[in-house]
Amino acid sequence: MPATIEWGPGGSVRILDQTRLPVEEHFAELRTVAQVAHAIAALRVRGAPLIGIAAAMGVAIGPARSLADVEASCRLIRATRPTAVNLGWALDRMLAAALGAEASGDALAAALRAEADAIRDEDAAMCEAIGEAGLPLLDGLGEVLTICNAGRLATGGIGTALAPVYLAHRRGAGIRVSVPETRPLLQGARLTAWELSRAGVPCTVITDGMIASRLARGGIGCAIVGADRIAANGDTANKIGTYGLALLARAHGVPVYVAAPSSTFDAATPDGAGIPIEERAAAEVRGFGAAAFAPPEVPVWNPAFDVTPAELIAGFITDRGLVRREGLPGFFAGART
Amino acid sequence: MPATIEWGPGGSVRILDQTRLPVEEHFAELRTVAQVAHAIAALRVRGAPLIGIAAAMGVAIGPARSLADVEASCRLIRATRPTAVNLGWALDRMLAAALGAEASGDALAAALRAEADAIRDEDAAMCEAIGEAGLPLLDGLGEVLTICNAGRLATGGIGTALAPVYLAHRRGAGIRVSVPETRPLLQGARLTAWELSRAGVPCTVITDGMIASRLARGGIGCAIVGADRIAANGDTANKIGTYGLALLARAHGVPVYVAAPSSTFDAATPDGAGIPIEERAAAEVRGFGAAAFAPPEVPVWNPAFDVTPAELIAGFITDRGLVRREGLPGFFAGART
Repeated sequence: MPATIEWGPGGSVRILDQTRLPVEEHFAELRTVAQVAHAIAALRVRGAPLIGIAAAMGVAIGPARSLADVEASCRLIRATRPTAVNLGWALDRMLAAALGAEASGDALAAALRAEADAIRDEDAAMCEAIGEAGLPLLDGLGEVLTICNAGRLATGGIGTALAPVYLAHRRGAGIRVSVPETRPLLQGARLTAWELSRAGVPCTVITDGMIASRLARGGIGCAIVGADRIAANGDTANKIGTYGLALLARAHGVPVYVAAPSSTFDAATPDGAGIPIEERAAAEVRGFGAAAFAPPEVPVWNPAFDVTPAELIAGFITDRGLVRREGLPGFFAGART
Repeated sequence: MPATIEWGPGGSVRILDQTRLPVEEHFAELRTVAQVAHAIAALRVRGAPLIGIAAAMGVAIGPARSLADVEASCRLIRATRPTAVNLGWALDRMLAAALGAEASGDALAAALRAEADAIRDEDAAMCEAIGEAGLPLLDGLGEVLTICNAGRLATGGIGTALAPVYLAHRRGAGIRVSVPETRPLLQGARLTAWELSRAGVPCTVITDGMIASRLARGGIGCAIVGADRIAANGDTANKIGTYGLALLARAHGVPVYVAAPSSTFDAATPDGAGIPIEERAAAEVRGFGAAAFAPPEVPVWNPAFDVTPAELIAGFITDRGLVRREGLPGFFAGART
């Protein structure tokens, strides 16, 4: 698979434009902080971990004459999307790196680029670790249910929710994936089906309204979803539809796991009520691309995320192992050290 | 609103082509039984009660030299869609009318046309009765949740699930409707939002994955859905997504009512396991119109309906009043007399 994000020629950030998948593989060269901010807001790069990486790389290609330059870049990018905590986390790391470089007299630009590289490389390593932590959960399972895209396209590595799937597939475990299309922006149908198919992992696309029927039909061993922010009590913000999926999975006795790197755990937010939920444009629901669905005058509600209460989550698959809900305080304590 | 179906000039059946809504109001003149069968299969006319009416009108415009002609027309139309029981019910009525006409020496064609008229007029009356039966359930409720389209466009009258809504609106009750778009064919966004909007009933379109979040937000007093077939024990086949909606409603303490005319109750099917579920073409899920969503090589599962177990249904709003689950045996006994 092509790189979802990389350094381009002449100090640019080169991204695989995810709004054009699966119809075409289009790469865009982002040359300014504003272009990176716009690409994040327009979901040309998306997925909580990848948003963090893109934010860091965006700051690294911005002006770097002074700390004020870096702060201005961070402000511009931070305003793009409110829900994924990885965005703020990555920007805070870039600011800390800038402060450290100023204090030590390092060249600011070089320090920023090194920190962005570190964020990306650490994310890839965290994906591998998530895969290893989740792999035992798939033992003997035929099919896994996911939602949206928490795969290679959402990270700097092999994904979060899909990381255990890729490892199981690599080991010949015969794993299959049920993929709800994930309206309004269809990241399941467009992105997850695309990347699984390219990797040779058998998958079946369903509409979001078919999840309950698919669960009732049997054969789904567990659901694994990604996360945009995990509060201290385990309440988890993820793509709209995840909360419903979790309720339906519980009704069918199917456990739901949340897979996420440490950077997605937000100790500063006590519970789901404190997570800001981004509402996006009505046009995303009224149609798709050039196709019009709803009459243009009809009101639309378009929250991009929902919050799944911790009690619906069987465990968190992290780069530091599988964490049950009761283990979260210890996990957060470790995360702070 | 224009008539969804009516007699056209020169012995045709004139339909409002529902596949073109809400973009354009296109009327098609169907001149042969085969054209009517094709229009039903292609969902140009859809909704269980309207399918029954279209089937009857289709038989009435067909050859009518003998009973064998009528039987051939019924066979052609019966094969189009397996799940809605109204189709078979209407065709059986047409066959009975043909038999009666032969026995009594009436002109066959006139008898068929009269029976189709009766089916349509009775359906309109049943819609009114369903509205009256459901109206008290909306007392003091602000907002109702539905799915797909069980409104004017699905019947010969003011709808089934939407009939109580229209009556409440007419009485100035300030009722509002949450409308899940209902992928894959978007009957919620395209049809329900269109007809409610034309009637001045405030509604909000959401994607199917937003149902749980909408319920959690509060303010939904009940859900009312239509039905394609209700088994003797109350298990109900309806548009894919209804079963999930019912589970999510239960998790939020919101009652779910099924609204349907007597013709949708199928005494011959003991429970949901006996209801045939139509699976439709993968292309419906892979995209919409000219828009492509999923990669073309990825497998798709596309059941058009699901079955909601009777225990998730608070009551059945029928043309003979509100029937609770425990009242179903009596209702069916009455339906047979």
